[in-house]
Amino acid sequence: MSKSLPVVELPVLQDAAQCCPPITAGALPVADSERMAALFKALSDPVRLRLFSRIASHPGGEACVCDIQDVGVSQPTVSHHLKKLREAGLLTSQRRGTWVYYRVEPAALAGMSQLLAVPS
Amino acid sequence: MSKSLPVVELPVLQDAAQCCPPITAGALPVADSERMAALFKALSDPVRLRLFSRIASHPGGEACVCDIQDVGVSQPTVSHHLKKLREAGLLTSQRRGTWVYYRVEPAALAGMSQLLAVPS
Repeated sequence: MSKSLPVVELPVLQDAAQCCPPITAGALPVADSERMAALFKALSDPVRLRLFSRIASHPGGEACVCDIQDVGVSQPTVSHHLKKLREAGLLTSQRRGTWVYYRVEPAALAGMSQLLAVPS
Repeated sequence: MSKSLPVVELPVLQDAAQCCPPITAGALPVADSERMAALFKALSDPVRLRLFSRIASHPGGEACVCDIQDVGVSQPTVSHHLKKLREAGLLTSQRRGTWVYYRVEPAALAGMSQLLAVPS
């Protein structure tokens, strides 16, 4: 008999690239503000932001935790921050052998980028 | 005799437009991560994000608090959130007569926009 898995509530980010128009274009609806505020919250810690930048800028767009963990905090703290970034939908992860590999979720980055776009 | 005004410590944001290269271009240095994380923290609350979008999208780029305060929270809460946005360097304000008028600080928005830019 199959064991049922617990349902994990994650922000729906499939359409983050479509959400939202630039902040300068109109007032943000409530639902979008909740979704986007959660992404900014994940980036509101300097160590998390540095980890995110290390993954985003890693050759091939993917980083092993072993490549990025020298940010001056303990390994459990790195794991905690990576979990927060993953839970917010900013990163995806994959275990391969001994290591976990992280990638930036393109839709989440695109959504934030679009929201904060400066009118040209 | 003139009364001396208290010195308010605000983040130095004049060069926020120069800070930082896109997150996909390289690892973010510690000082920049602290500065930018503080901006994202200010946007990590849905009500603050909505207030920020209302000011950013207001005709003329400036909004009276009287134009933007119907966000479903009390007036003191609106004031508290606007203060947080101002302290983070995301808004500037000016009192004219009865009302306070808010503008987005262009360098702060440009800095975040540049940091989260998606490679084309």
